[in-house]
Amino acid sequence: MRIQVIPNTGEARTDQFLHKTTVVIDVLRATSTIVTALAEGASGVLPVETVMEAKTLHRQGDLLGGERFCRKIAGFDLGNSPCDYQSGAVYGRRVLLTTTNGTRAIHKAGRSDHVLAGSLLNAEACAAAAALLRRDIVMFCAGTHDEFAFEDGLCAGLLIDRLLRITGEETETDDLGLAMLGFYRSNADSIPEALLRSASGRRLTKLGYAQDVTFCSQIDLFDAVPRLSGDTMTIV
Amino acid sequence: MRIQVIPNTGEARTDQFLHKTTVVIDVLRATSTIVTALAEGASGVLPVETVMEAKTLHRQGDLLGGERFCRKIAGFDLGNSPCDYQSGAVYGRRVLLTTTNGTRAIHKAGRSDHVLAGSLLNAEACAAAAALLRRDIVMFCAGTHDEFAFEDGLCAGLLIDRLLRITGEETETDDLGLAMLGFYRSNADSIPEALLRSASGRRLTKLGYAQDVTFCSQIDLFDAVPRLSGDTMTIV
Repeated sequence: MRIQVIPNTGEARTDQFLHKTTVVIDVLRATSTIVTALAEGASGVLPVETVMEAKTLHRQGDLLGGERFCRKIAGFDLGNSPCDYQSGAVYGRRVLLTTTNGTRAIHKAGRSDHVLAGSLLNAEACAAAAALLRRDIVMFCAGTHDEFAFEDGLCAGLLIDRLLRITGEETETDDLGLAMLGFYRSNADSIPEALLRSASGRRLTKLGYAQDVTFCSQIDLFDAVPRLSGDTMTIV
Repeated sequence: MRIQVIPNTGEARTDQFLHKTTVVIDVLRATSTIVTALAEGASGVLPVETVMEAKTLHRQGDLLGGERFCRKIAGFDLGNSPCDYQSGAVYGRRVLLTTTNGTRAIHKAGRSDHVLAGSLLNAEACAAAAALLRRDIVMFCAGTHDEFAFEDGLCAGLLIDRLLRITGEETETDDLGLAMLGFYRSNADSIPEALLRSASGRRLTKLGYAQDVTFCSQIDLFDAVPRLSGDTMTIV
């Protein structure tokens, strides 16, 4: 098995996904939110690219979720804070989610054999699910506006660390994957602090979302592994 | 002062270099070779993009150096092995050097206020020289065929580590720089082994250049800091 890392959405080319399992990673916050929503009993999360599309596809009983400039979209039920998706808020409901980076990355990965959503919150379960699918793996860091994001690289490193433990020595990792592995290991003891220091962490803190950063820093809080089935993410 | 990392030559945009000091990093092997050539007394290294250009610009007394597919170019005096440039081979001579990735990166960085060549071999001296120039700094990892290369990222991390020690806390590092810093620190005790395991290290070893990989792994062997002056790299 081979593992490859794509550092941001702008860097991805369609042919890189063919015959692969792709793990889309947008720790702050889209994939953390999708994991939380499904762990909390949402029936599915439909990632959509525009606000208009979300409104058009909305059916009775659905919830509209998402952000622009990090904030909840006017008229939407939920923002992009995973905390919005807890305490029964989404149980049994379908969520239409639109975010700046993560939903775009999920669409871009669409030609993969399998698309999973990875985050710190579901790292072990996600690594195990990816290993079981027996394809080469692309760790697709969504990044921020086509630039590498600290937290996504860190999560890619954690997932590679877990995958290597599961699959053993026969797994080959590309150079960027080895870099992210080293990066994760050197920060393993202080993930929440590291995330708060990152560019996204500081931006979210400034906007009043420090609680989200801390929430998304929790490793293995959930066993839920969102997987794209048709156009909707559901639990594996 | 701000530090930013560009992960490979394909990712670089001209506007990223304006008003900056750029450190071009191609550890295996172009910048290691340039550092070695100048440390060994070459009068200058002129990076050129094509073999034809090298032959056209060649004047009496010049040496032709470079590689294609890692090997010495037919009819050239020297390859891209830093070891070729030792033991008086280049003393007092100008070298016209053409390589696959590194020379292209040097040209691409040309709009910077200052362009330095960085490698493990001259890390401390290069970090000190960059700090003295009092501009924001771009660590420009040349990479291999527009992909991130392990050894260049590791070197960027080492240079950032040294720069932070020199400039102190007021220096801001972008997310990719923080990742490379962690990556370097987690490999700091085993640089030669790590380089031999990297994709470029394995490729060079297979082609009989393991000695180059080991040579290029040495930290702070030289004080020479190549700096672009006009179209030629000379000692600062």
